[in-house]
Amino acid sequence: MSIVVSIPGVDKTHWWVEQLQVLLPNWTIRPIDDPGDAEAVTYAVVWKPATGAFLAFPNLKAIVSLGAGIDHVLADAELPRRMPIIRTVGTDLTQRMREYVALHVLRHHRDMPTIAANQRERRWKPLVVPPATGRTVGVMGLGNLGGTAASTLAALGFETLGWSRTRHDIEGVTTHAGKAEFDAFLARCEILVCLLPLTEATTGILDARLFARLPRGASVINAGRGAHLVDDDLLAALESGQLYHATLDVFHLEPLPSEHPFWTHPQVTVTPHIASLIDAPTGSRIVAANIERFEATGHVEDLADAGRGY
Amino acid sequence: MSIVVSIPGVDKTHWWVEQLQVLLPNWTIRPIDDPGDAEAVTYAVVWKPATGAFLAFPNLKAIVSLGAGIDHVLADAELPRRMPIIRTVGTDLTQRMREYVALHVLRHHRDMPTIAANQRERRWKPLVVPPATGRTVGVMGLGNLGGTAASTLAALGFETLGWSRTRHDIEGVTTHAGKAEFDAFLARCEILVCLLPLTEATTGILDARLFARLPRGASVINAGRGAHLVDDDLLAALESGQLYHATLDVFHLEPLPSEHPFWTHPQVTVTPHIASLIDAPTGSRIVAANIERFEATGHVEDLADAGRGY
Repeated sequence: MSIVVSIPGVDKTHWWVEQLQVLLPNWTIRPIDDPGDAEAVTYAVVWKPATGAFLAFPNLKAIVSLGAGIDHVLADAELPRRMPIIRTVGTDLTQRMREYVALHVLRHHRDMPTIAANQRERRWKPLVVPPATGRTVGVMGLGNLGGTAASTLAALGFETLGWSRTRHDIEGVTTHAGKAEFDAFLARCEILVCLLPLTEATTGILDARLFARLPRGASVINAGRGAHLVDDDLLAALESGQLYHATLDVFHLEPLPSEHPFWTHPQVTVTPHIASLIDAPTGSRIVAANIERFEATGHVEDLADAGRGY
Repeated sequence: MSIVVSIPGVDKTHWWVEQLQVLLPNWTIRPIDDPGDAEAVTYAVVWKPATGAFLAFPNLKAIVSLGAGIDHVLADAELPRRMPIIRTVGTDLTQRMREYVALHVLRHHRDMPTIAANQRERRWKPLVVPPATGRTVGVMGLGNLGGTAASTLAALGFETLGWSRTRHDIEGVTTHAGKAEFDAFLARCEILVCLLPLTEATTGILDARLFARLPRGASVINAGRGAHLVDDDLLAALESGQLYHATLDVFHLEPLPSEHPFWTHPQVTVTPHIASLIDAPTGSRIVAANIERFEATGHVEDLADAGRGY
């Protein structure tokens, strides 16, 4: 009965092996490159695992993704079929995400980029914006992270809309579901937040077609995945004035290459994939608890559905 | 039965005279410089009135301040004694202030100034900060604005403290009162927000003594009045590392003179007195309703206490 760990970076792998060993003393914990008896391995704790990494373990019961998304696991074309995937969420992750969303929605709402530019020019120019009660914001994706973010925006006073594949009910939020209600949702979003899972259906969803359906001058915040965004379409929409500003936390390639135009674009705020992190001590406790629960009951709350992709 | 209006700027005075006339058709509304029958004047609606401005009106029943503060009225050494002063607050003012406080506390909490500086250098450097649940913030002043701001911070997950002259109870906020509890409050505030009224006791309260009692590396947000802050003490505390950053919305002289060191200081964010504004259409409705209520009942909820200064 053993667990393998596969995380980019020798130091990080080493940290997780040691930490999980403390939390799960009855288990054998080893790095995936040095697994010992492969037939004894029943769980793999991973972030961006290598293609085919799981084929060596015939008795694997579940894969644990070190984050809310499972796209980095599903990217493995040789992933064993019907393998349970356990997500790692926890209150720290949702707390950090709602802070990030509140901060950046408020920054756009109060036009801090312009106020900061005015400060650089020593220009005293009071801007009057409507109160949040007169501003409509929308959240795409209403899972743990998106749902909590939408509730937080509603509590701050914003007129808050939500959209997701299937219907969700969230107090204070006007929710929309499915393709049929997508354009009506977009038409009202002065500030749009993307917290969708990355699936085949959502890849490239932030594209010219979507931007054209927002009110002119809208702002966009992407804290989902880099592959949700068509970079060139965003640049064109900013150029044309259809979009006013974008805040991006995730990118096709991370770290964002230094020659990428987002770095220096005056209407783009770049943050280095920090919207939501689980710190390792908290994360390892969640992972250990999920493995123990899955081992005992065959189920955990944060079990992903590989078929739908999240 | 008439009302005089005294607001800096001919256009603004004109706008308010017209707007109040629409809302109060049975009253005569005139600019203070052209009041008509001075004995008929029973209310004065003012922002920063001239010294002695009220002496001409022997039958004045109340002065209406166009904002939450009354320091600009009390600054008149010839203010008639025991004159009721009606503050103008309303939900827009509290809503805008809680947005401003949430935005700037979150900016400091997530260290956006450093992230923005990193973007300018194209530097991908993920910073890990604790979740808000591990961050203690404090609000000085727990009136309409400060109390709502403190509740908002608590709802965002922050460990939230409050301090005021007299005891207030606010759900989710650990409140402190009076001089006896001031230092214990300050000792825990990693981010300190000043929303005090400006009185003799609070003038210059943000000084070297106060900064020295905060945890090292704290940040300060002043959205009260410019005269709460001793500018040189702030610069010295930033220089020594005792303070990390300051966000200032109010200044001794406004507009902030272009040669003032705050404009270009890398650890100071300057906003042009925009934390909370009542837009004129909303404000005029509140003023009209307050005058009607005071005329009918001799009381309004937002009556100030000139003796205590707010």
